[in-house]
Amino acid sequence: MRRLLGVDAPDGAGSSHRITAVVNVGDDVWMHGLRICPDLDTCMYTLGDGIDPVRGWGHAGETWNAKEELAAYGAKPDWFGLGDRDIATHLIRTQMLRTGYPLSAVTEALCNRWQPGVTLLPVTDDRSETHVVITDPEDGEQRAIHFQEWWVRHRAQVPTHSFAHIGAEQATPAPGVLEAIEGADIVLLAPSNPVVSVGAILAVPGIRGALRTTTAKVVGVSPIIGGKPLRGMADECLDVIGVDTSAEAIGRWYGARSGTGILDGWLVHDTDTADVPGVAVRAVPLLMSDPDATAAMVHAALDVAGVTL
Amino acid sequence: MRRLLGVDAPDGAGSSHRITAVVNVGDDVWMHGLRICPDLDTCMYTLGDGIDPVRGWGHAGETWNAKEELAAYGAKPDWFGLGDRDIATHLIRTQMLRTGYPLSAVTEALCNRWQPGVTLLPVTDDRSETHVVITDPEDGEQRAIHFQEWWVRHRAQVPTHSFAHIGAEQATPAPGVLEAIEGADIVLLAPSNPVVSVGAILAVPGIRGALRTTTAKVVGVSPIIGGKPLRGMADECLDVIGVDTSAEAIGRWYGARSGTGILDGWLVHDTDTADVPGVAVRAVPLLMSDPDATAAMVHAALDVAGVTL
Repeated sequence: MRRLLGVDAPDGAGSSHRITAVVNVGDDVWMHGLRICPDLDTCMYTLGDGIDPVRGWGHAGETWNAKEELAAYGAKPDWFGLGDRDIATHLIRTQMLRTGYPLSAVTEALCNRWQPGVTLLPVTDDRSETHVVITDPEDGEQRAIHFQEWWVRHRAQVPTHSFAHIGAEQATPAPGVLEAIEGADIVLLAPSNPVVSVGAILAVPGIRGALRTTTAKVVGVSPIIGGKPLRGMADECLDVIGVDTSAEAIGRWYGARSGTGILDGWLVHDTDTADVPGVAVRAVPLLMSDPDATAAMVHAALDVAGVTL
Repeated sequence: MRRLLGVDAPDGAGSSHRITAVVNVGDDVWMHGLRICPDLDTCMYTLGDGIDPVRGWGHAGETWNAKEELAAYGAKPDWFGLGDRDIATHLIRTQMLRTGYPLSAVTEALCNRWQPGVTLLPVTDDRSETHVVITDPEDGEQRAIHFQEWWVRHRAQVPTHSFAHIGAEQATPAPGVLEAIEGADIVLLAPSNPVVSVGAILAVPGIRGALRTTTAKVVGVSPIIGGKPLRGMADECLDVIGVDTSAEAIGRWYGARSGTGILDGWLVHDTDTADVPGVAVRAVPLLMSDPDATAAMVHAALDVAGVTL
C-alpha cells in the first residue's frame, strides 16, 4: 500500500497506489439552511466525472431554477451559485449532519456514489471557517464576512485587512488525516490557494506538526506561474498577508522543514526560478493540461523527493 | 368587510369581499430534510398564478434535476414529486420553521410573494398529520404509513383499514382560524376530499364546534358527481370509512347543523339528487371549468344560504 498526498489512487488499471486527499473546509457555509462544502464537492465531482468542465465547479448539466425562485422570494444571499443538481448533495449532507454524522462520514457516504478513486477527507469534522475582515464599501465600517461572500459576491474587490479561521483553534483533524500524513510515502501540497485553501488546512492544529514530523518527504507545487495565479485570486489573498505573488515568495512562506517550515521540495513552472533556502527546488511544466502532463508533474515531485513507487 | 369561507377576495376590481381559506395540513411531510405542505402550496401557487395548469400541482416550468440526483444517490423516498422550483419554497419554509416561526407566519411570508388575493391559513400550526393503516403488500403486516406514501407511492392501491390524524388531539387552530369562521358571512366547504382533506381539517379540535356555532350559514359543495370523484381518489377514502361514493352519502355524513352535523346547505351537481335531512340541497352545475362557472357556483351557495353580499 502506497500513499500519496493522501489519496488512494484507483485500484483499477493495475495500480496499487492509494491516494488520500486532505481537503479544505474553510469555504464551507450554511446557506438557505443547507450545508455547502465547495472544495469537497469540487474534488468529488471532478474525480467522479460529474464536474462541469467549463466552470470547473458544480455539476455538469446543471440548472438554476431553485436559485431563481429563491431570488423571486427575495431570499438572501442571492449571489451564490446554488445549482438544482447540487442541492441534492447538500440535502443529503445537511440531513446526515443534523442526524449527528460527522462530515468525514457524510463525505464517505456521498463518495459511495461518485467513486472518486481516492479517499477524500475533510481536514476536520469541526467548524473551521475562513472569514475575511473588510471595510464594507456601503458604510465604511470594518466587519468580518464569510469567505464565500468575499470571494463570490465581492470577487475580492473590497478593502481587505486579514483572514480569520473561525473555530480553527478548537478544531481537531478528522479521523484518518494525521494517519494519512504520517503513513505516507510522499505528501504533496496541491497548487491551491496558499492562503485560503492550503493555509486554511494548516490552520487546523496538528496538521503543521504532522507535516514537520512525518517520515515522508513533503513537496509543494507552486500555484503561481510567471507572477500570476493560474486561476482563482491567490494574488489578492497574498496581498492581504503581505507575501509577493511569486513562486519564490510562496515557497519561502511555506518554508523549509529543516528550518521552521513544512517543505522538502518545491516545484515551480519551467519558466520560473526560485531560491528557497533549505528546500530542493525543481522547475518543471506545471500546466495540468491533460492527465499525461499532470502525471509528469507528479513524477517530478516524486523524483525531487527521491521516492520510487 | 365581508368574509367568505374564510378568504379575502382581491381588493382590486372594486371588490370589497375578503376571503380566508382554512387549509388542510394533514398531507404535510418531512422529506429529505424539507418541510413540504402540498395543500398550502397548491392553493398559493394556483391563486398566485404559478401553478402547473396540466398537473394541477407544483410550479409551472418545473424541472426535476434535484430529484434525479437524489435518486442517483439512492436517497429514499424516491417516489415524491420534488421539483427544483418547489424546493425554493420548501427551503424558505424549513428555515423559518427551524428558526421558530409558526407555519401560519411562514405561510404569510411566502404569500407576500405570490399575492394569492386571499388569506391562506393552515388549520393549525401544530402537527396533525394524516397516516393510513394498511396491510403492507410486501410482508403482509399491518402498519401506518404517511398519507403521502399511501397517496403518491401506492396510489391508494393497497389494503387499507383506517386513517389516523397523528397529533390532531393536541392541536389547536392556528391564529385567525376560529375568528374567520365565527366572523364569516358564509362558510363554504370546498369540494375537496371529504375524508383526508376536509376530514383532516375537522379533526382539529375546535373546528367542528366553530362550524356548529358560527352565525354564518355553512354550505358544502359535493366533490362527487355522478357517483365518481371529479379528481383525486375520494372513492378509495370513502370506502375505508364505509361511506358510499355519492353526493347524498357525503352530505349525510357531514350532517345537518340542526342535528349533530355541520351543514346548512349542500350543493350537488345538476345531474345528481340528494336527500339530506335538515339540509337545504340545491342541484347546480359544479364543474369549475372557468372563473364564470365557478362564480355561478359560489352564487348558488350564497343563494341557498340566503346571503346577499
